[in-house]
Amino acid sequence: MALVNEHLLKLPNNHFLLNMEKKINTFKVTHPKAHLISLGTGDVTRPLPQASIDAMHKAIDEMGCIDSFHGYAPEQGYSFLTEAILKHDYAARGVSLEPGEIFINDGTKREVGDIGDLLRHDNSIGVTTPICPIYIVANVTYGRAGTPQPDGTWSNVVYLPCLPENNFIPQIPSQRIDIIYLSFPNNPTGAVITKNELKKWVNYAIANDTLIMYDAAYEAYIQDPDLPHSIYEIKGAKKVAIEFRSFSKTAGFTGVRCGYTVIPKELTAGTLAGQRISLNELWKRRIAARNNGVSYITQRAAEAIYSPEGKKQIKETIAYYMHNAQILKEGLSHAGLQIYGGEHAPYLWIRIPERTTAWKFFEQLLYEAQTIVTPGTGFGPEGENYIRLSTFAKYEECQEAVRRIRKCI
Amino acid sequence: MALVNEHLLKLPNNHFLLNMEKKINTFKVTHPKAHLISLGTGDVTRPLPQASIDAMHKAIDEMGCIDSFHGYAPEQGYSFLTEAILKHDYAARGVSLEPGEIFINDGTKREVGDIGDLLRHDNSIGVTTPICPIYIVANVTYGRAGTPQPDGTWSNVVYLPCLPENNFIPQIPSQRIDIIYLSFPNNPTGAVITKNELKKWVNYAIANDTLIMYDAAYEAYIQDPDLPHSIYEIKGAKKVAIEFRSFSKTAGFTGVRCGYTVIPKELTAGTLAGQRISLNELWKRRIAARNNGVSYITQRAAEAIYSPEGKKQIKETIAYYMHNAQILKEGLSHAGLQIYGGEHAPYLWIRIPERTTAWKFFEQLLYEAQTIVTPGTGFGPEGENYIRLSTFAKYEECQEAVRRIRKCI
Repeated sequence: MALVNEHLLKLPNNHFLLNMEKKINTFKVTHPKAHLISLGTGDVTRPLPQASIDAMHKAIDEMGCIDSFHGYAPEQGYSFLTEAILKHDYAARGVSLEPGEIFINDGTKREVGDIGDLLRHDNSIGVTTPICPIYIVANVTYGRAGTPQPDGTWSNVVYLPCLPENNFIPQIPSQRIDIIYLSFPNNPTGAVITKNELKKWVNYAIANDTLIMYDAAYEAYIQDPDLPHSIYEIKGAKKVAIEFRSFSKTAGFTGVRCGYTVIPKELTAGTLAGQRISLNELWKRRIAARNNGVSYITQRAAEAIYSPEGKKQIKETIAYYMHNAQILKEGLSHAGLQIYGGEHAPYLWIRIPERTTAWKFFEQLLYEAQTIVTPGTGFGPEGENYIRLSTFAKYEECQEAVRRIRKCI
Repeated sequence: MALVNEHLLKLPNNHFLLNMEKKINTFKVTHPKAHLISLGTGDVTRPLPQASIDAMHKAIDEMGCIDSFHGYAPEQGYSFLTEAILKHDYAARGVSLEPGEIFINDGTKREVGDIGDLLRHDNSIGVTTPICPIYIVANVTYGRAGTPQPDGTWSNVVYLPCLPENNFIPQIPSQRIDIIYLSFPNNPTGAVITKNELKKWVNYAIANDTLIMYDAAYEAYIQDPDLPHSIYEIKGAKKVAIEFRSFSKTAGFTGVRCGYTVIPKELTAGTLAGQRISLNELWKRRIAARNNGVSYITQRAAEAIYSPEGKKQIKETIAYYMHNAQILKEGLSHAGLQIYGGEHAPYLWIRIPERTTAWKFFEQLLYEAQTIVTPGTGFGPEGENYIRLSTFAKYEECQEAVRRIRKCI
């Protein structure tokens, strides 16, 4: 008899999102004429940059001619894209990386999970909390997260609380943890980390032989030039960190699928016998064995965002979303809500009024302001007293949402 | 200290392909003026069907407008594509499947590996041999293949020889095996399986509670209407088989990346405690947790191959490659070589002359016929006396290759 991987049975059955959908659908059925505004989704809404559109049209025509047709892509990505990344995302910020350290992929959610193949099932895991669930579920498949507890936590995961008291930057843990997930700008809190704070984490990782998984998917939203976009802006980080970058939120690629992973050649992890293994080499072997590269057309679309026009266009889109953030933050602050984030990230993390719960406040906003938000509990127990607003709606909708929410609270 | 997954260290380091590349490069350096013909690659060369080109241009324009923009795709795929698949690939052959049983993915190589997440690390594995290496390496990551042996086999894998004596259709094993990989039309042998033969496998699987992984990536090359394109043409197969399909060789999508997996709702595997688990449900949970869908543009390209123009165009391309197969098969048979395959598959499996080895014959053809082929050893020890020719080159090159090879042997 073929036996299933029983770790997978522990995966959350999407209860949270299904519950949210169910409540929204109930509202829609009972209020067929209502115009709902969604500030709940983490998905973008603005069109792709014209530079990417143009590049894809061109790439497609190439695929229609025998002399310019492209078959299997190089597993690690085309050099035209890798070179653009090295130059614009890293060299421009003083970080020197080699082409062989960049791995083009079809998006961070999948990659964060797949990269777990590199690691033993019994490494200990540390995550910030509240947390985007992908970092934990990525580890469930391998049994690495342990078992789910009645309070919604996992037995083998160390939680590092991010609270207003610590400015949503977790304290350095007192114990050793094998693998730590960090993500700044953060989803859902919108928090950013300074170079000084990030340095403490790199030093911790060096001292404890910890592997940092650094998700910088929202780095393009950083407004302050002094804040780090990459963990490699910190000395020594190449020895301890893998970095994930995505074109999803930078260039509206959620429906196109492209991102990349940086695995520096200096980065190693150990075998039980104490041998040090290059994770770059090991990942190369893993993708050669299991992957077949990312669409040529998609990689050309990604390359185009580094052109002068592309850069300008993505800057405009990000400015649009950040203007939304400002409208929402200002408008709702005036309504007396305590709001975090929204300055270097497309998310607002909002403390809900006392004597209510995240789900109750969600329902209040749904029924009284006809506005969809995300209850903080979707990001773990630490989110119980919060809701998350995303800033990916239309500008006019954000304005209207402010009006409606102010009226109802 | 973060510990690596030591199973990955057992992955073959691409020695075979690197060795092949090295020998070819040596030839090129010493023969700078030679015009090499490649019959070695499994990659396609004909342009994409015009229907897909047109569909992608349209889809890209949609992505450039706010009102027709598409963000995250449904994890399981867009219904426009799923419906086209159900209608044209299954209903047309009398197979009834539901939309929820189709999972759109970005290619079979990756999917065959990922699907292994569903299964315990200690299931036993059976593969046909010679074999395309992806089925085995897919299991190495999980430790399921066991350890590599000096003769190139893996300790936990049962090998089912495919030889001229059995028409390259393996014998039903005498022992129980938990998971068996079958692929017809076959790479590298080009063999096909009849409904009667396939029925024996389905019956074996039902009797032994075996899970069949059926790779039908080359079904579009089948010329005989009586041969099965899908394992579900056999009664009872929905209880025991997962099927993989790919647009890579059907429509030239190797550089576009799209395929699909069928996991019937009736299909189950067990827990240690004996509970039956729906693999369809479990895979749904796995992809909801770890994937973010396939590019909208790519899915529109795939949908277009089911249009009347698309169907006509892919038929023409396949006819082109099959004409190449005919040229090569006829021409080289006349040279006295024993040739298998090439009738319902884009591969010829050629018995090498006596008193030579696959690598020696490879070198002879490289130096004397300036033609690249693949030594059969790339498909396991069973390939020692064979070379594989693919039929994806230009027609004129196939003609010329025949001339050159006939001259040199």
